[in-house]
Amino acid sequence: MSRKTIRHAPIVKGVPHLLHGGDYNPDQWLRTKDETWKEDMRLARLAGVNTLSVGIFAWAALEPEEGRYEFGWLDEILDLMAENGITAVLATPSGARPGWMSHRYPEVLRMNGDRTKNRHGGRHNHCLTSPVYREKTLAINTALAERYGRHPALGVWHISNEYGGECHCDLCQERFREYLRDKYGSLDDLNEAWWSAFWAKTYSDWSHVESPGAKGEQDIHGLQVDWMRFTTEQFVDFYLHEITPLKAITPEIPCTTNLMGTYPGIDYYRLAEVLDVVSWDSYPQWNGTESDVRTGVEASFHHDLTRSLKGKPFMLMESSPSATNWRPVAKLHRPGVHLLQSLQAVAHGADTVQYFQFRKGRGGSEKFHGAIVDHEGTEKTRVFRDVAEVGERLAGMDAVVGTATPADVALVYDWPNRWALDDMRGMLQQRTGYARTVIDHYQAFWQQGVPVDVIDGSLLAAEGGLDRYKVLVAPMLYMLRPGVAEAVDAFVKRGGTFVATYASGYVDENDKTFLGGFPGPLRETLGVWAEEVDALYPDDRNAIAWNGTEYEAFDLCELIHAEGAEVLGSYGSDFYAGRPALTVNHRGAGRAYFIAARTGADFLGDFYGSLIAETGVERALDTDLPAGVTAQVRSDGDTDHVFVLNCSPTPATVDIDGEALELEPYGNAVLERPRKGGNAS
Amino acid sequence: MSRKTIRHAPIVKGVPHLLHGGDYNPDQWLRTKDETWKEDMRLARLAGVNTLSVGIFAWAALEPEEGRYEFGWLDEILDLMAENGITAVLATPSGARPGWMSHRYPEVLRMNGDRTKNRHGGRHNHCLTSPVYREKTLAINTALAERYGRHPALGVWHISNEYGGECHCDLCQERFREYLRDKYGSLDDLNEAWWSAFWAKTYSDWSHVESPGAKGEQDIHGLQVDWMRFTTEQFVDFYLHEITPLKAITPEIPCTTNLMGTYPGIDYYRLAEVLDVVSWDSYPQWNGTESDVRTGVEASFHHDLTRSLKGKPFMLMESSPSATNWRPVAKLHRPGVHLLQSLQAVAHGADTVQYFQFRKGRGGSEKFHGAIVDHEGTEKTRVFRDVAEVGERLAGMDAVVGTATPADVALVYDWPNRWALDDMRGMLQQRTGYARTVIDHYQAFWQQGVPVDVIDGSLLAAEGGLDRYKVLVAPMLYMLRPGVAEAVDAFVKRGGTFVATYASGYVDENDKTFLGGFPGPLRETLGVWAEEVDALYPDDRNAIAWNGTEYEAFDLCELIHAEGAEVLGSYGSDFYAGRPALTVNHRGAGRAYFIAARTGADFLGDFYGSLIAETGVERALDTDLPAGVTAQVRSDGDTDHVFVLNCSPTPATVDIDGEALELEPYGNAVLERPRKGGNAS
Amino acid sequence: MSRKTIRHAPIVKGVPHLLHGGDYNPDQWLRTKDETWKEDMRLARLAGVNTLSVGIFAWAALEPEEGRYEFGWLDEILDLMAENGITAVLATPSGARPGWMSHRYPEVLRMNGDRTKNRHGGRHNHCLTSPVYREKTLAINTALAERYGRHPALGVWHISNEYGGECHCDLCQERFREYLRDKYGSLDDLNEAWWSAFWAKTYSDWSHVESPGAKGEQDIHGLQVDWMRFTTEQFVDFYLHEITPLKAITPEIPCTTNLMGTYPGIDYYRLAEVLDVVSWDSYPQWNGTESDVRTGVEASFHHDLTRSLKGKPFMLMESSPSATNWRPVAKLHRPGVHLLQSLQAVAHGADTVQYFQFRKGRGGSEKFHGAIVDHEGTEKTRVFRDVAEVGERLAGMDAVVGTATPADVALVYDWPNRWALDDMRGMLQQRTGYARTVIDHYQAFWQQGVPVDVIDGSLLAAEGGLDRYKVLVAPMLYMLRPGVAEAVDAFVKRGGTFVATYASGYVDENDKTFLGGFPGPLRETLGVWAEEVDALYPDDRNAIAWNGTEYEAFDLCELIHAEGAEVLGSYGSDFYAGRPALTVNHRGAGRAYFIAARTGADFLGDFYGSLIAETGVERALDTDLPAGVTAQVRSDGDTDHVFVLNCSPTPATVDIDGEALELEPYGNAVLERPRKGGNAS
Repeated sequence: MSRKTIRHAPIVKGVPHLLHGGDYNPDQWLRTKDETWKEDMRLARLAGVNTLSVGIFAWAALEPEEGRYEFGWLDEILDLMAENGITAVLATPSGARPGWMSHRYPEVLRMNGDRTKNRHGGRHNHCLTSPVYREKTLAINTALAERYGRHPALGVWHISNEYGGECHCDLCQERFREYLRDKYGSLDDLNEAWWSAFWAKTYSDWSHVESPGAKGEQDIHGLQVDWMRFTTEQFVDFYLHEITPLKAITPEIPCTTNLMGTYPGIDYYRLAEVLDVVSWDSYPQWNGTESDVRTGVEASFHHDLTRSLKGKPFMLMESSPSATNWRPVAKLHRPGVHLLQSLQAVAHGADTVQYFQFRKGRGGSEKFHGAIVDHEGTEKTRVFRDVAEVGERLAGMDAVVGTATPADVALVYDWPNRWALDDMRGMLQQRTGYARTVIDHYQAFWQQGVPVDVIDGSLLAAEGGLDRYKVLVAPMLYMLRPGVAEAVDAFVKRGGTFVATYASGYVDENDKTFLGGFPGPLRETLGVWAEEVDALYPDDRNAIAWNGTEYEAFDLCELIHAEGAEVLGSYGSDFYAGRPALTVNHRGAGRAYFIAARTGADFLGDFYGSLIAETGVERALDTDLPAGVTAQVRSDGDTDHVFVLNCSPTPATVDIDGEALELEPYGNAVLERPRKGGNAS
Repeated sequence: MSRKTIRHAPIVKGVPHLLHGGDYNPDQWLRTKDETWKEDMRLARLAGVNTLSVGIFAWAALEPEEGRYEFGWLDEILDLMAENGITAVLATPSGARPGWMSHRYPEVLRMNGDRTKNRHGGRHNHCLTSPVYREKTLAINTALAERYGRHPALGVWHISNEYGGECHCDLCQERFREYLRDKYGSLDDLNEAWWSAFWAKTYSDWSHVESPGAKGEQDIHGLQVDWMRFTTEQFVDFYLHEITPLKAITPEIPCTTNLMGTYPGIDYYRLAEVLDVVSWDSYPQWNGTESDVRTGVEASFHHDLTRSLKGKPFMLMESSPSATNWRPVAKLHRPGVHLLQSLQAVAHGADTVQYFQFRKGRGGSEKFHGAIVDHEGTEKTRVFRDVAEVGERLAGMDAVVGTATPADVALVYDWPNRWALDDMRGMLQQRTGYARTVIDHYQAFWQQGVPVDVIDGSLLAAEGGLDRYKVLVAPMLYMLRPGVAEAVDAFVKRGGTFVATYASGYVDENDKTFLGGFPGPLRETLGVWAEEVDALYPDDRNAIAWNGTEYEAFDLCELIHAEGAEVLGSYGSDFYAGRPALTVNHRGAGRAYFIAARTGADFLGDFYGSLIAETGVERALDTDLPAGVTAQVRSDGDTDHVFVLNCSPTPATVDIDGEALELEPYGNAVLERPRKGGNAS
Repeated sequence: MSRKTIRHAPIVKGVPHLLHGGDYNPDQWLRTKDETWKEDMRLARLAGVNTLSVGIFAWAALEPEEGRYEFGWLDEILDLMAENGITAVLATPSGARPGWMSHRYPEVLRMNGDRTKNRHGGRHNHCLTSPVYREKTLAINTALAERYGRHPALGVWHISNEYGGECHCDLCQERFREYLRDKYGSLDDLNEAWWSAFWAKTYSDWSHVESPGAKGEQDIHGLQVDWMRFTTEQFVDFYLHEITPLKAITPEIPCTTNLMGTYPGIDYYRLAEVLDVVSWDSYPQWNGTESDVRTGVEASFHHDLTRSLKGKPFMLMESSPSATNWRPVAKLHRPGVHLLQSLQAVAHGADTVQYFQFRKGRGGSEKFHGAIVDHEGTEKTRVFRDVAEVGERLAGMDAVVGTATPADVALVYDWPNRWALDDMRGMLQQRTGYARTVIDHYQAFWQQGVPVDVIDGSLLAAEGGLDRYKVLVAPMLYMLRPGVAEAVDAFVKRGGTFVATYASGYVDENDKTFLGGFPGPLRETLGVWAEEVDALYPDDRNAIAWNGTEYEAFDLCELIHAEGAEVLGSYGSDFYAGRPALTVNHRGAGRAYFIAARTGADFLGDFYGSLIAETGVERALDTDLPAGVTAQVRSDGDTDHVFVLNCSPTPATVDIDGEALELEPYGNAVLERPRKGGNAS
C-alpha cells in the first residue's frame, strides 16, 4: 500500500515548461493574414503563450477539392510559430468534413438511432465505419505527417476533436454484429447473456441483431451496454486508424485526442489505453456565488479522473479564458477566477493550460466564446490581462513539469456501471444520479485536502491494481465486472479499507442480475444482504443515526440485513426505523463499510473524516481547511508543490503550522516543501 | 329501481375459490429448469398460489423458427402445474412477435401517426390489419388450443396482453375508409358530420380520407373520434379473430384480455362486449403518505369501472406485490398495503388476485418489477411473506366467489366523451381533466361507503339500462350520444335523481356542437341554459355559496341561466357574482341537479352526503366513516360480505352499531351479515 | 423634426365610416342556408356590422373538383350583403388547399426543416415555389376578380390568410440558391460573409448550399439570417403573384393580407411595401387582473408597429369578441374589455374593428373561438350585446376615419435584428428577449401618453427617414445594417436625441461581428466602448445608481468604458461596481444616451420621463396619467381625437386641466379638441 512518487518526462520532448496557449484558427483569417497573423504572434508573446493548436476543423482549408491539398497557409503559420518559439499542437482535421465529401459520398454522414439520416452540417457528423471516410482520413493524415513530421514547431498530434456521438447506419450495424459474434460466439450465449427470452426477443439469426433505437429495440439492457461498449471500440479503432501514418512517420511525437470529463458516450478508460497522453476540455461554470465551491469540487474531480486514466500528467487542452458562450447564462470570469481555474488544473496533474480559443472568429456558433484576443483585437481587455497573468505564473513553474500525484485513496468511477444505472428501470427510473453521487463522496476528500485517484472496474480487476491504495471507495457499484469482487475481497483481507453503498452488486457485466441476494459477489466481503430498496420522493427525508447524530438520508434507502457485519448506524424513521443503515465488516486485516442510503455532505464529511484519521491516509496539509478551500499536491518524490485553492467568493484563512495563510476570494497559493518520507529522505 | 342480488358461477368451472397467483415465465429459465421449476412449485405452494399465467410473450419460445413449434417446455410446465393443483391462465402469444417474423414480413410492424415505420423491438408493435400477422396468430392459437384444450391445468384463455396503441399503415388506412363508408354511406354525410367545410377540408374522394397524425390532419374533431372508434373496432375484430380457434375447440373455457383501467386508447365498454370475463392490471402508487387516500379512491374507481363493464366478478390479472419498477419513484409497499390492495380488489368484485410477476427475470426492462420470488430466490423476503399472507386470507373466502355488488348509484364514465374532451380546443385546451373530475365525484360516494356502478353512454341509452338505479351522476357529459338525453329525461321523470355539471351537452356523437344553447338536448331536463364558460388560471378561485357556506370553485365556471330550475347556490365573486352556480329542476317524479363550476372534495362531500340521505341509497355500513376509510359490499343476496378498508397511513376507528372497529394504518376487516331485505328475507 | 399631420382617404372608397364586422363562413352553412344566411343578415344589422370577410379557406367550396368552379353560393351571399349595406372583404382562398390538390400534386405540400414531408392537412401547408400551386392560385384568383370585380359589395381584397411558415423542398432549395447567387455573386464572397471557414463549412459548390435544419446545418449565423430573408422574399413574391390578376382587373380595390404583430417568420416591414393597406390579427389575453396593464401595453405596441409599417391607418382584421379558444386558459372578456380593446385599436390608427368570427362553426378546431353569434344562435348573449355596443360607438366616429398619429418619437423594432438575437449563441443563449425589451422601453412612453412610431433598420437608413422625429430609441440594436450608423450619427449631430443599450452594434447585416470594439460603427456616436457583457441568472440583481436612486439591473450588464461620453450612472455591485452604467454623449446639436444594463419599469419610467420633459416631445394629454391608463391621439391636423383608455381592472381618475375624468375598470373616454399648432392654426 505505498508507491514511489516519480517525475515523468515533459509531454513535448525538449520543452520542459508548462505549456500555455490554445486553439488557433488562422485559416479563418486568410483574407487579412498579413496583418492578422503578425499581430497574433505579437499578442501571443505578450500573453505568455508558448503553444498553439492548429488545424482543428481545417479540412476544407487543407483539401478544398477532393484530392487537391492546400498546405501553403499551414506552412506559413507553422513557420511563424517556430520563429516565435511556439510549440504546435497539430490536429488531424477529421472532426468535420468538407461539403464536397458529404455531397459526393453521403455514406460518410451519420444515421441517428431512429434511422433518420443526417444531412451535411454540424461537426462530428461522420460514420466511423464508412470506408470512404476512413480512406480520406488516412490520406490527409498521411499527407500532414509527411509534410510536417520534421517541422521544428511540431510538438503534439491532436487527433480529431472531442470524439463523440454514434452512427446507426447499415455499415455500423454490420460491424456491431461482428463485435457481438466475437464476444459471444453463439447466438445461444448472446440470448442467455441478454436474457432475451423476455418479451419474445430471443434472436434466431445474427442478421436480426440491431442497435437500440427510438423506433426499435429499447428493452434489452444487455444490448444497450454492448452497444455502448461497441461504440467505444469504434472510437478506439478509428483513433488507431487515424494515428497509423503518424506513428509510422513520427513515432516520437505523442498523440492525444481531447476528452470531455465524464462524457457518457465513450468509456474513456478504454480509449485512454491507446493514447500517448491524455488531454481534456474543461468548462467549469463559475458563478461568483457559493455554488462555486461545488463547481470547484467537480472540476477537481474531472481533473483527477482525467489524470488517473493514464496515471501521469495530462493536458488541459481547452478551457475558457472568460465566458463560455454555450452556457444558458454566459457569465464572465470574476477577478481571480481565471488564475484559480488554471492553477487548479496544474494542481491535479495538468502540464498544460490551454484555451479554446486564441482569437474569436467573426461568425459561426462559437463566435462569442471566450478567447485571449477579442473581436476588439488588442491587449487592452481584462481577459487578455488575466491570461497574461496566468502565462507569467506558469512560466515560473518549470519545477512542476512531470511531477506526480501521491494518492492513498482510490475512488471508483466506471463507465459501463453508469450506462447500466442510467438505463435502470427501477428505483428512480433512469435518474439514479451516479456521477453526482461519486462526486459527493469525492467532495469529502477534497475538503480535507486528500489526493484521490479515480479508477474503474478494469483497474479494480487488474492484477495489483489496488496495491498502492489504503482506501477504496466504490459508490453505487451496481455492475460488477468479472474479477472485481475477488480483487476487492483480497484488498480488504490484506488490510485495505473498502466503502460500498446501496445499489451495489446487482448486475454482471452484461447488466443481468445476480441471483442469490444483493450485493451479489460482494455479499460476503461486506457481510450484508440487501433485501430491497425504497425510493423516496425528492422532498422526502429519512435519517441515519450514527455516533449520536441524525444525518439526513434521501432518494434511496436500501433495507439490509447484517450478516456478520457490525451495525454502526440505523434508520431514523418510516417502517424500517431502527434497521441497519451503516455497517462495517471486519474481514482479514481490513474493513468493509456499507452505507445503505444516500446521504448528504454532512454525513459524508464526518464519515470520511473519521476514516481518514483512522486509516492515516495522506493529506496535502496537516490542517483543517476552511469550507471551499482545498489543497492538492504534486511531487517529484523530493519536493512537494502544494496548491492551496480557494474556490469560494469569500476570503479564507488557512492555518499552516500556526501561520495564517490569507486567501482572497478565488485566491491561491503554491507552497513548496521537502517531501515527508520522500525519495530523497 | 331495484334489482335482485345474485351469485355468479366461478370464473373457472370446478374451481370455487378465489384465484391467487400471477404471470409466470418459465421459458426464461430453460437453462436451469430442472432446479428452478421445481423450486417454483414449492414456493408457489408456500405462497398459497393456485393459479399461474403462462405463455405471455412466449412466441419466440413456442415458434423459434417459422412454422416449427416447440411445445415440449410448455407440456412440461403445465403438467407440473396440474400436479401441484395450479390452474393455468394460458396466454396467446400475440403481444410480441419473434424476430424472424418482423424481419421476413415487415408489414407486421406498426406505422406511427407521423407515418414513420417502427423497426422490430418493443412489444405491442404489430399491425392489427396485416394478413400475415393475422395468419400467424391464427395458426399458433389453433395449435395451442389443439394441444392444450383438454389439459387438466387449463382454466382461462388470456388473449394477447394489454391491447393498445394504433397503426397508421396503408392497410389500416384502407380498413378505416371501409369503416367510414359503412358508417356514413356517402361522403356528403361524412362532410356534414365532420363539418369539414372548415378550412377547406371537404372530402371529394374516399381515398383522400386518412387517419389523423402529426404531419397530416389534426383539426377535424369528427375524424379524431371516428379514428378512436375505429381503433377500438380493430381490437374487437382482432380479439374475435384470435379466439376463433379457441371457441371452436374449447367453447367452455372463458376468454379474457387484460385491460388497463381508463386507458384512453380503447373504448373498453365496447371491447368488453366480446369478452367472457373482464380482467385488468392494477398498479396503484402507494406512497406511505396521506396521498394514499386518493390512491385508494382511484383504485376503487377503476375496480368498479372494470366490474361494471360486464356487471359481474372480474379478474385482477396483474398487480405488483411490491415496487412497480416503471414508476418514476419506485416505492416499496408499506406494511399492510399489499393485503389492503388485494382485499380492495375483491371488495369491488375481483374473484382473483394475480400479480405481475411470480419470479423476477434477470434481464429486460422489467427485471426490477415486484415479484413473489425475488432474484434472491427464497421465501425469506418480506414481500414473499406479504404474498403468503394474502394467499392465506383468500383461501378462507370461498363464500365470496361469484358474489355481486348491490349498487343504487350509477356514475357515468364514457370513452368517446373523454376523447372529445381531451381534444377540446377551448376552455382549458386539452387539459379538461375528465377522468379526474369523474373520480372527484366518485370519491364522495366512496367516503360514504356507497357502492357505485360505472356506466357509459351505450348503457345510458340502452332500453332499461337505468332501471336499477336511484341516482345517476354524469360529470362533464360533453358529448351526448343518440338516445342519451331521452333516457336521462325518462329516468328523471319516473323519479330518479340526476346530477350534471358544466361542460355538458355541447356536442353530438361526432363531436359537432349542438345548436340552440347548451346543454343541448338536456336543456329542458335540467332547466338551465349555459351561456358561456369562464376558464380560470390554476391558482385562481371563485366560490359557490350554498346552504350558508362558501365552497371553492376553480378551473371552469359556467355562466348559466335558470330556465325553470330552482337556484340553490350562486357564484361568490368576479363579474358573475350572484349568478346561479347550483340548481335543481323538479321534473316529473324526479330531480335534475346542475353544478355549474368545478368544485373540491368539501363541496362534493356535502352535496352528495345530502343527496344520499335524501334519496335513501344503500350504504355498506350505516355509520359515518373516518376520512380515508371506505366500506364496500359483496353479496349473494343472502349474506353480505362487508370490506372495511383503511387506505390511509394513520389508524382509524369505525363505529359499527356502537362498537369500535379499530383499523391499523392500511388495516382491513371483512365482516359478514345477513342481507337486509335480501333474497332470503 | 416636424411634419404636417394629414388625413388619409378611407380604406374603402365611398365608405367613410369605421368598418365593423369580421370573418364569415357562409360556406359552412350551405345545408341550412335559407334560414341561416337570412338570420345572419338580421343579426349583422342588429350588431352594427357593416363589413364581413368572406371566402377565407373556401377553396374546397369554390373549386370542389379540379377546374370546376362553384360560384353560386358566393354570388348569393355577396348579393345579400350588398342588399344589407355590408362591405365585403373578399379573400383569395390560398390559405388552405382542397384535398384533391394535395393528393394529385403532392409537390404543393410543405417539407419541414428536418426534410420530412407533410401530408394533406392543417392550413398554410403549401410550398410557395411549387409551379402547380402558383398556377392553381392564379387561376382561381383570376376567376374571382373577373366574377366579382364589379360587385357592389366588394371593398377590399384579403389575400390568403396569415402568411407564415416555410418550406424546405428541393424547389425551394433551388430558389434559395438563386437568391444567394443574386445577393453574393460569388461563393467566395458568400463564404467570407458567412465566415464559413468555421468548422470546415466553406462552400465549394453552389449546389452544396442548403437551408438550415434540424438534421443539417445549424451553426452558420449568416445562413440562418439569409434563410429568413429569403423566406420573407418568398412571401413577397407569392403575394405579388396572387395580386397580379386582381391588380389587372380591379386596380382600384385595395389589397391586404393579415399580419400577426411581431410574428418572427417574416420581416413585415419588407412585406408591407407591397401591400396597399396593412391589416393584422390581434388577440390580447385579458385576464381581469393587474397583468392586463402589460397586456394593454403590448396590444398598443403591436398596433403602433402595424400602423408604422405604412405610416397610415390600418385594418384590425381579426380580434376576438370574447374567449380566444386556443389560449391555454380561454378566459371570457370582462365587462368593458371588449369595448376597450376595440377603441384601443382605433386609438392607435385602426380604421376597422373586425373579428374572427361572425358565427361559430359547429366543427373544426376553432369551433369554440369567440364569435358575434354563438352556437345558441340569437342576439341574447352577453357577447352579442358587447359587440353591438362597439358597433354603436364606432358608428358615431366617422370623424376619426383617415386621421393620423402625430408621433415625435421613433422606437426601433427590427426583424433581422431579432433573428440574429434569437439565434445568438452567447449571453443568454437564444433567450435574449428582444421583443420584450423593446416593449419595456415602449411602455415608458405609453404610460406618459406619448405617441410612438415603430421603425426598422430600413427606415433608419433611408434618406430622410428620421427627419420627423425628435427622439430615437433603439434597444439592443445588435445588428447594424449598412447606413444605419451613419444615419443615426447624422440624426444626433443635427439635434436629435438617441438612446441605445447594451448588446448594440455587435454584428453586420449578415450576422458577422464587427472588429475594433463594440458598439461597432456606433462607438463614436455613443462615445463608449463595450468591452464585455456579464449575464445574470434570473434571480440575480445588480443596480444602476443614477440621480441619487438605485434602480435594479438584471439579465445583462455590459461593462463599458466612457470614451468621451459623460457618465451619468454607475453599477451598484459585483466586481464592476462603480463602473459606468448610463452615459450621454454630447455630439453636434444632439445627445446620445447609452444604457449599459437591462433595467425595469422604474428606471425606464424615470429615464424617459426626464427625456420627454427635456426634449419637449408631444404628450396626448398634458397631465400625469394614473398607472395602467394611457392616452393616444389621432388627428387630421385640425382636430385631435384623444382616446383615454384604462387597461386595468381598477377604476382610475385622470386630471385634465383640473377636471377629474373618472374611468371605470377597463373604462374609456374619447375627447375632442382643436389641434395645438395644427394645420388650421
